[in-house]
Amino acid sequence: MSETDSIRELSDRVRDFADRRDWAQFHDPKNLAMALAAEVGELNAILRWVRSDAVDRAVREPGVRERIEAEIGDVAILLLQLCTRTGIELGQAVTKKLSRNESAYPEGQSRGLSERPGN
Amino acid sequence: MSETDSIRELSDRVRDFADRRDWAQFHDPKNLAMALAAEVGELNAILRWVRSDAVDRAVREPGVRERIEAEIGDVAILLLQLCTRTGIELGQAVTKKLSRNESAYPEGQSRGLSERPGN
Amino acid sequence: MSETDSIRELSDRVRDFADRRDWAQFHDPKNLAMALAAEVGELNAILRWVRSDAVDRAVREPGVRERIEAEIGDVAILLLQLCTRTGIELGQAVTKKLSRNESAYPEGQSRGLSERPGN
Amino acid sequence: MSETDSIRELSDRVRDFADRRDWAQFHDPKNLAMALAAEVGELNAILRWVRSDAVDRAVREPGVRERIEAEIGDVAILLLQLCTRTGIELGQAVTKKLSRNESAYPEGQSRGLSERPGN
Repeated sequence: MSETDSIRELSDRVRDFADRRDWAQFHDPKNLAMALAAEVGELNAILRWVRSDAVDRAVREPGVRERIEAEIGDVAILLLQLCTRTGIELGQAVTKKLSRNESAYPEGQSRGLSERPGN
Repeated sequence: MSETDSIRELSDRVRDFADRRDWAQFHDPKNLAMALAAEVGELNAILRWVRSDAVDRAVREPGVRERIEAEIGDVAILLLQLCTRTGIELGQAVTKKLSRNESAYPEGQSRGLSERPGN
Repeated sequence: MSETDSIRELSDRVRDFADRRDWAQFHDPKNLAMALAAEVGELNAILRWVRSDAVDRAVREPGVRERIEAEIGDVAILLLQLCTRTGIELGQAVTKKLSRNESAYPEGQSRGLSERPGN
Repeated sequence: MSETDSIRELSDRVRDFADRRDWAQFHDPKNLAMALAAEVGELNAILRWVRSDAVDRAVREPGVRERIEAEIGDVAILLLQLCTRTGIELGQAVTKKLSRNESAYPEGQSRGLSERPGN
């Protein structure tokens, strides 16, 4: 499959894959939420016993990297399927969230702090 | 923020947002995996008590839809941050996974079946 | 191993199992939280494609039931390990939460409603 | 509520709480799996930005400890509800899993290793 930087193109490929298997019947939003919990769980399984100070090195090992890439693929595919099913646009969801976060985490007060100012 | 269909553009915006807050220190792969579990957990919270036969209707209610869009935004942002940190390309992760799934779930044998043939 | 109804006894067995393998080094609260995400993810994987109206029947199939029992075991083991590591008592955590929920969900107002009154 | 070390007693209290609110209708295994993903997600949210070498100290801070105790309570309550619904016994699920793990992780070969021997 050729490379693409287009969300719409990726989304079309994902939908086409499922359509050719008649899988829309399984992909309601409830099932997709559970499938996301399953795949994000697999991602957590890969890194659960790796300490913080070793994790950036660990993900450069080819075997670990490949497993993480596969989980990122799975999560992204499910996210695109959830978008298709709900009529939500992924790019718009991201830009709206970034805009909201600009207000929730003002640059001046949030620099170097992981929690929302005031929390 | 303007609309975009480009993964690279979205990824740049996400990185810029975090850079202006000096947040790379928090965004190692282990922490991002946990943050993904947290946000996917919120998505599951929204739909946990909705039955399968009511869920497609539920996600069309403006309030529910808006909450789901916000969670999709959060999950996508974390996924893009994980890609940036690990040097993995989101589009490539998706197309590689789709290619692998083409072999794992052959069209003829997978039609209408949710599980991998042979399982 | 003999049957037991005692949380303390179960907790002792779980700790003994890990001690004999020198595993306390892996069982800090952050790692255990990720491991819980992984095991709850596996539980979600089992039921993700089963519709609400079929799920009570599905969990009575011996194969499905056995897989769910194994996941319940995994989740409970990790929860007991988290209690041991943090010095939190499982029974107390449950009774405290039930007490708090008595106020948050008053019987009269919560009957038959899945959401907190006022939400 | 009085202290108890008995799983059966805890389970009875949890069921009684739900019965008085007519909540069995929400507590099918699929919904409970999603609710577990939601609560384990909240647990992960508490610790996601805390580094491994700071996490044992962090969970001793009264505020953090209380939030973790509340999540442990939530997860345990849902696990007991899942047991009630499926007719699985929590204590038995734990002891069966420990027995199986004795074979999967032989003491001699597993000492100090987080992964299953041979993986």
